[in-house]
Amino acid sequence: MINVVFLGFGNVNSHLLNTLHGTDKITVNQVFNRNYIKMISPFENISFTDDLSKLEEGDIYIIGIPDDAISSFSDSLPFQNKLVVHTSGGVAMDALSSKNRRGIFYPLQTFSKTRKVDFKNIPICIEAENPKDLDLLRRLGETISENVVEIPSEKRAKLHLAAVFVNNFTNHLYQIGSKILKEEDLPFDLLKPLISETASKIETLSPEEAQTGPAKRNDIKTIEKHLHLLGDSPYRKFYELFTEELKQNYGKKL
Amino acid sequence: MINVVFLGFGNVNSHLLNTLHGTDKITVNQVFNRNYIKMISPFENISFTDDLSKLEEGDIYIIGIPDDAISSFSDSLPFQNKLVVHTSGGVAMDALSSKNRRGIFYPLQTFSKTRKVDFKNIPICIEAENPKDLDLLRRLGETISENVVEIPSEKRAKLHLAAVFVNNFTNHLYQIGSKILKEEDLPFDLLKPLISETASKIETLSPEEAQTGPAKRNDIKTIEKHLHLLGDSPYRKFYELFTEELKQNYGKKL
Repeated sequence: MINVVFLGFGNVNSHLLNTLHGTDKITVNQVFNRNYIKMISPFENISFTDDLSKLEEGDIYIIGIPDDAISSFSDSLPFQNKLVVHTSGGVAMDALSSKNRRGIFYPLQTFSKTRKVDFKNIPICIEAENPKDLDLLRRLGETISENVVEIPSEKRAKLHLAAVFVNNFTNHLYQIGSKILKEEDLPFDLLKPLISETASKIETLSPEEAQTGPAKRNDIKTIEKHLHLLGDSPYRKFYELFTEELKQNYGKKL
Repeated sequence: MINVVFLGFGNVNSHLLNTLHGTDKITVNQVFNRNYIKMISPFENISFTDDLSKLEEGDIYIIGIPDDAISSFSDSLPFQNKLVVHTSGGVAMDALSSKNRRGIFYPLQTFSKTRKVDFKNIPICIEAENPKDLDLLRRLGETISENVVEIPSEKRAKLHLAAVFVNNFTNHLYQIGSKILKEEDLPFDLLKPLISETASKIETLSPEEAQTGPAKRNDIKTIEKHLHLLGDSPYRKFYELFTEELKQNYGKKL
């Protein structure tokens, strides 16, 4: 049995609680949060505290708070030589206070309050200062995911950067698409099957193989039409940047 | 029964043939292509020609050739007053020769040779010069899709522009993600669950609601870390453009 204490109760930790609670190899001993949270069913038996001095014993303490608060929060913990991990993609392991054994438990996924997430396929990126802790984190990860990988902080930073491109920036492209349609009173729903297929394609094709469109073909006529339609819209600079880059990338291969 | 003749046999028309063939309300009379194509099973009974003078009768002629060839090709057709449509998102209906009755049959999806596509949810955007032809195109569309919509050329041009953003440009972001990982010897597979969830999220959330990330939060520290990691990489200008835009968008709402 692995005893877990959650420190902070934002999106990541609440999704982790949801998925860890009820697995038979894990006990969630306690949830700490700076602000009071009422533990509701099915978590009403999990102890809650907003007082650091009342933290209970755990095999693993999982910090899930904003990136820039992790370091000082880990300093403020009233114990030492315990395994303390954080769940952030963009923060190095050594940001954690060295008075405890440090580690990382980073589920590479985008979490929203309102969406249930299936952890089975989510990569859990782990790291620890010593092999025994790494093994414990691996066992914790494997109770919920089939994809637990050890990734050191420097590589994880790049992984997090790549995640920003394929998640945050992609979502912004969806937003641009949605706004272009709104201006024409067309429903965003029209684009959803295309968005879904664009994402599904790279399950079996590399992004290079999956690439299509006027920029790749260097279809000057269509590109000019699009620039004309865009006029001086704020999306024009996105169109120009992507088109220039795609023309160059694929132009080389012609 | 609706009799269809395919003019050109690229990605769109071959996927259309695949899905229309075998529905009991449609007969595919003939496939024309400039270069010889051997019709293989289960299409071996469909007549093929590479000679425009040997075109057979059809209720609808569907042109599926490169955008910039549509106009002159439609001029070269050896008949008049037939219903001739094209399947392109970016070309206006009046690019077709006026000697025939003109229309549009544009399935809004990305097609690759190697991937089977389920048309059921794909929006089929139709347009025609007269109501009878529009009705015929609607009936054709409804044999394969539950989402047939009449959209005039000007709106379709904007829809196609939006499609370029959410499909072509999104795929390029996938490619950037893949390259960043490659530099670290990390497998692209790590990003696939995130890519899938990013696309799935907007089935139930608007792109505005689904947005997350350091730029939205104006998390200067993470943004600076990322810019440092990017150095003078070619992806830096993408990072800067998206980040600036997202900061402005969400900054306003703070």
